[in-house]
Amino acid sequence: QSHLAQLSLLYKWLNSFPFLFLSGAGYHSESKAKEYKHVCKRACQRAVDRLKAGAFAVEAVAAALVELEDSPFTNAGMGSNLNLSGEIECDASIMDGKSLHYGAVGAISGIKNPVLVANRLLNEAQKGKLSAGRIPPCFLVGQGAHDWAVTHGIPPCPSEKMATKFSLSAYKRNKRKMELAEKMDTGHNQTKKRRQSSENENGSGCLDTVGAIVVDQEGNVAAAVSSGGLAMKHPGRVGQAAHYGCGCWAENACNMNPYSTAVSTSGCGEHLIRTMLARECSAAMQSEDAHQALLEAMQHKFISSPFLASEDRVLGGVIVLRCCRCVEAQPSQDIQGALVEFLWSHTTESMCVGYMSAQDSKAKTHISRLPPGAVPGQSLAIEGGVCRLMSIVE
Amino acid sequence: QSHLAQLSLLYKWLNSFPFLFLSGAGYHSESKAKEYKHVCKRACQRAVDRLKAGAFAVEAVAAALVELEDSPFTNAGMGSNLNLSGEIECDASIMDGKSLHYGAVGAISGIKNPVLVANRLLNEAQKGKLSAGRIPPCFLVGQGAHDWAVTHGIPPCPSEKMATKFSLSAYKRNKRKMELAEKMDTGHNQTKKRRQSSENENGSGCLDTVGAIVVDQEGNVAAAVSSGGLAMKHPGRVGQAAHYGCGCWAENACNMNPYSTAVSTSGCGEHLIRTMLARECSAAMQSEDAHQALLEAMQHKFISSPFLASEDRVLGGVIVLRCCRCVEAQPSQDIQGALVEFLWSHTTESMCVGYMSAQDSKAKTHISRLPPGAVPGQSLAIEGGVCRLMSIVE
Repeated sequence: QSHLAQLSLLYKWLNSFPFLFLSGAGYHSESKAKEYKHVCKRACQRAVDRLKAGAFAVEAVAAALVELEDSPFTNAGMGSNLNLSGEIECDASIMDGKSLHYGAVGAISGIKNPVLVANRLLNEAQKGKLSAGRIPPCFLVGQGAHDWAVTHGIPPCPSEKMATKFSLSAYKRNKRKMELAEKMDTGHNQTKKRRQSSENENGSGCLDTVGAIVVDQEGNVAAAVSSGGLAMKHPGRVGQAAHYGCGCWAENACNMNPYSTAVSTSGCGEHLIRTMLARECSAAMQSEDAHQALLEAMQHKFISSPFLASEDRVLGGVIVLRCCRCVEAQPSQDIQGALVEFLWSHTTESMCVGYMSAQDSKAKTHISRLPPGAVPGQSLAIEGGVCRLMSIVE
Repeated sequence: QSHLAQLSLLYKWLNSFPFLFLSGAGYHSESKAKEYKHVCKRACQRAVDRLKAGAFAVEAVAAALVELEDSPFTNAGMGSNLNLSGEIECDASIMDGKSLHYGAVGAISGIKNPVLVANRLLNEAQKGKLSAGRIPPCFLVGQGAHDWAVTHGIPPCPSEKMATKFSLSAYKRNKRKMELAEKMDTGHNQTKKRRQSSENENGSGCLDTVGAIVVDQEGNVAAAVSSGGLAMKHPGRVGQAAHYGCGCWAENACNMNPYSTAVSTSGCGEHLIRTMLARECSAAMQSEDAHQALLEAMQHKFISSPFLASEDRVLGGVIVLRCCRCVEAQPSQDIQGALVEFLWSHTTESMCVGYMSAQDSKAKTHISRLPPGAVPGQSLAIEGGVCRLMSIVE
């Protein structure tokens, strides 16, 4: 196993507090990459617009996710992968680093923007207990989640409107492939059948969970994630995007933690759940060297995780953000600000990232790829940048 | 806040490898306590029978849970709390410390033993990939979970058979209470209404999630948990019992961890989820003094957790087991064995625990209570014991 590490210090901004960064891990063909970059740009713009209007990180991150879900090219909201029964069931979650509240929905159908239901759950939980002392839920699934959303003013959306020409044809293709694989396997021994058919089906976007991480002008962090789940998943299957600690994590700095951290993950849900990758990366970010810490977390807590010892290919990607306050002594005055480090890493063939500060006129986007010859699921790419956000103290 | 700590070294056994320990946190009246103790004894017996027949820890823990679910007195399986719509939706999960595999179901209806579905998911995932390289699910919810169970040979059970006279009358009582509370609140300001009605409704067993932890003769650990969830919960609400890292945790010793640990939690799902209490306690158990580590984990990671800063009462209980190999030099021969420490701690008014080794003719049971005057949700009780399991090395 060769681990590939590469850190680029990409940008330095001045006076640009809000910051956003988003991704989808999987495989991105050249033609698809273009579409992806477009939607990433729009999502960054949407979040930055909200931040400029004074919104908190958690509101901005939800706004970015809505844009990503609305795109038919991402595997989230509109255009999500179809499950074994040809239906769309989505997972989404959101975490607010300030209150540490969390909201999630799993296997929800007939809702165009699952992240808005997760966000509403978070907001409702912050209001305190329900009538008769009942504790408000932080995680709802299936029909119950759908009904809760509708009674809380989130409009239902007919499922057939959420499928796209692309997702329907992918479903038909996958179904044929599955039937063929099962026919070919007939007569083979059961164990052999299962092991041998492990050629991966990640070709066409089935891992493209989307996520975003944001820091606002008060230094609060937030993270969110949304996914249509694996193609041809069993109905009712819930992936990392609805799983606390696995799909996203956000935690403001506190007594014990010098850094505020936000993480969002993308990839194979079961791998990301069993390694609790979002929380692991967040915890790793408290050590001094962010790049080294993320590299080690991806190597030891993901690729070589004892929790995935039986897996031949461990597929996932993370976007990570951390920030801390800093003061720089200058001849005439002290400059106070925040140091924001943002990193991404993936074991998938590629990952699309976008980032933007309130200072920028438009978002930057980038398709990160494993170098030629590197084996997806066994090697990783890591990149990132540092951004110094300054304000002058009189 | 006064934290109450008390450690009793309860028992020492010789030559008694298998070991089991289970609980339900909540409030136990004297009359209910008797029933609870009975079912705990039966569950211990069932698991020990399996262990004696050579079963692994994970099989034994599932057997214990089946017995607990089948009792109409526990809030799991038969006799589960009814949700807002008067229906039963169960959560359950199981973890195998040897393979580190995990299976969970959430908000599942019409299945008498949810833990068997979780266990089957774990077993199926261990077999490797499905046809066409699809990754098997580790977490299924709702109707999809039910259908998966039935196609995997687990018989459906009509929901009306799972309700008991007790659960139905509790539902009616809770519904009246809720309607009354909502009527009384009419006219009050919305925030005030929510805050003021936080008097807790834990009176009648609504927190009695059940769990078990086991170590087998090879030293493998396993943990499982099952719950009907909070009374009057919203349909689709999933609690800690289905949440990875929150309801149960089991991890055999490895290079990095000197101790094998198993944990199961019980209490208010949202509190246990947001603090990831099972995994936190498991991690804490790697430090030298188990009692001190659990006490600190319950204080800092639960009662005073920054994740629950807005909660006035933090309700939960844990059962914890850790073991390590040990050698004792004796004049004539070396004695090799394992040191098993078992602890329980709770912030709820009471918790019922049972424990048994393969050596015992019957299980011991105990209702642990907070001392008089202690405030549930702000104080804790902690107790436990050590057990030396020996075998003579020739």
